[in-house]
Amino acid sequence: MTHLSTAPTTPPSIPAVDTRALSVGLLGGTGPQGRGLAIRLAAIGQQVLIGSRDSDRAAEIADEAAARARTIATRPAVNLRGGSNEDIAAAADVVIIAVPFAGHAATLAPLAGPLAGKVVVDCVVPMGFDKLGAHVVEVPEGSVTEQAAALLPESQVVGAFHHISAVLLEDLSRPSIDTDVMVVGDAREATDLVQALIGTLPGMRGIYAGRLRNARQVEALTVNLVSINRRYKAHAGIRVTDV
Amino acid sequence: MTHLSTAPTTPPSIPAVDTRALSVGLLGGTGPQGRGLAIRLAAIGQQVLIGSRDSDRAAEIADEAAARARTIATRPAVNLRGGSNEDIAAAADVVIIAVPFAGHAATLAPLAGPLAGKVVVDCVVPMGFDKLGAHVVEVPEGSVTEQAAALLPESQVVGAFHHISAVLLEDLSRPSIDTDVMVVGDAREATDLVQALIGTLPGMRGIYAGRLRNARQVEALTVNLVSINRRYKAHAGIRVTDV
Repeated sequence: MTHLSTAPTTPPSIPAVDTRALSVGLLGGTGPQGRGLAIRLAAIGQQVLIGSRDSDRAAEIADEAAARARTIATRPAVNLRGGSNEDIAAAADVVIIAVPFAGHAATLAPLAGPLAGKVVVDCVVPMGFDKLGAHVVEVPEGSVTEQAAALLPESQVVGAFHHISAVLLEDLSRPSIDTDVMVVGDAREATDLVQALIGTLPGMRGIYAGRLRNARQVEALTVNLVSINRRYKAHAGIRVTDV
Repeated sequence: MTHLSTAPTTPPSIPAVDTRALSVGLLGGTGPQGRGLAIRLAAIGQQVLIGSRDSDRAAEIADEAAARARTIATRPAVNLRGGSNEDIAAAADVVIIAVPFAGHAATLAPLAGPLAGKVVVDCVVPMGFDKLGAHVVEVPEGSVTEQAAALLPESQVVGAFHHISAVLLEDLSRPSIDTDVMVVGDAREATDLVQALIGTLPGMRGIYAGRLRNARQVEALTVNLVSINRRYKAHAGIRVTDV
């Protein structure tokens, strides 16, 4: 490569965004992926709000997650509470969608108002299983992330966290999860913010991986990781080389 | 995980298949991806046959590739020759498809006969470019690899090599390319053979990554790697963790 005198002195993989003051909501935070992310975020001192269809269940999971987060916490104050999806969508600064694919559209459709103006991070995978193993479920909008963007026209929708095994997130014997997180989205400030948030989690690195129209294969690659896990008895993840 | 007394003692990532005696044909071997793979394979002592629509051009590229392979060869005999796609399809034991996507179906359709009974490795990416960057081109069969399988009903079709940058393959200042190669296919003996072949290339590891029906997102992820390359000025590749 030729020398570029205009090249940035800091690599673009570490956007300088301070995410510590942001509250992070997790819709579907009572499932394994949402719960695991909640624990990991709370453990580094992030304010975390767990949303569920059932607000009592959300409160219960928030208490459990808080207790588990304290066992690996790098900052003393663990700040977690639960509520209904609607309450949490309204209260949180950044909202992560971690509901099952079957409930994705129905969960988001009534939340366009409370989520307006916010960064929404979708980590839902359109995956089904049959006797041949895991397969991709077709999404009319092209991808789950694009479905979210269609349902939340006033939000900045980003796709991320698809490739992290919920088993690893919940295995607190590993305080660090050494993996890259592919981040897709059309708004640079939103993908930068999500990359910065990911970068605060021990071992993780957020990598910008393209526009929303290229979300589909990032989501769907999780199906291949499931095939890899089955063949190799592993909890496979992804690292991007040369970045 | 509970202990399984029936667990294999060798990891499934290193199938014990001897590929050294096999000749490897590269259809579209005059393009950068095919040429790069030809050089790398010839340099480790594999017999390599370069196919092209233009057999004179194939012969010329074979001579050039042989000279370049000698500069990094780990075994003295570099065995490369060129020919028409039809000749090479008939002569080679294993055939890699590295034509541009636009010529994929037209190249393979007349070769079902000569490729019958052989392992065919498709590394073609259905990618287009517009003013927003790289995007995925829809393939009626679902993926390029499935298109090959439909056109070559008597062959064992495997998808692989999608994520390796042609720039890296042709950069002989790097004798080793440290990357994983996702291998998809329905026939175990074919994916094992392709993984074994990949494993002979310095730095590379072939990882079984699912069935043909899950080829689409492996191919399409190359589009995201192009987005990553653009953002980070990199030649991004993939490593699978925990395998």
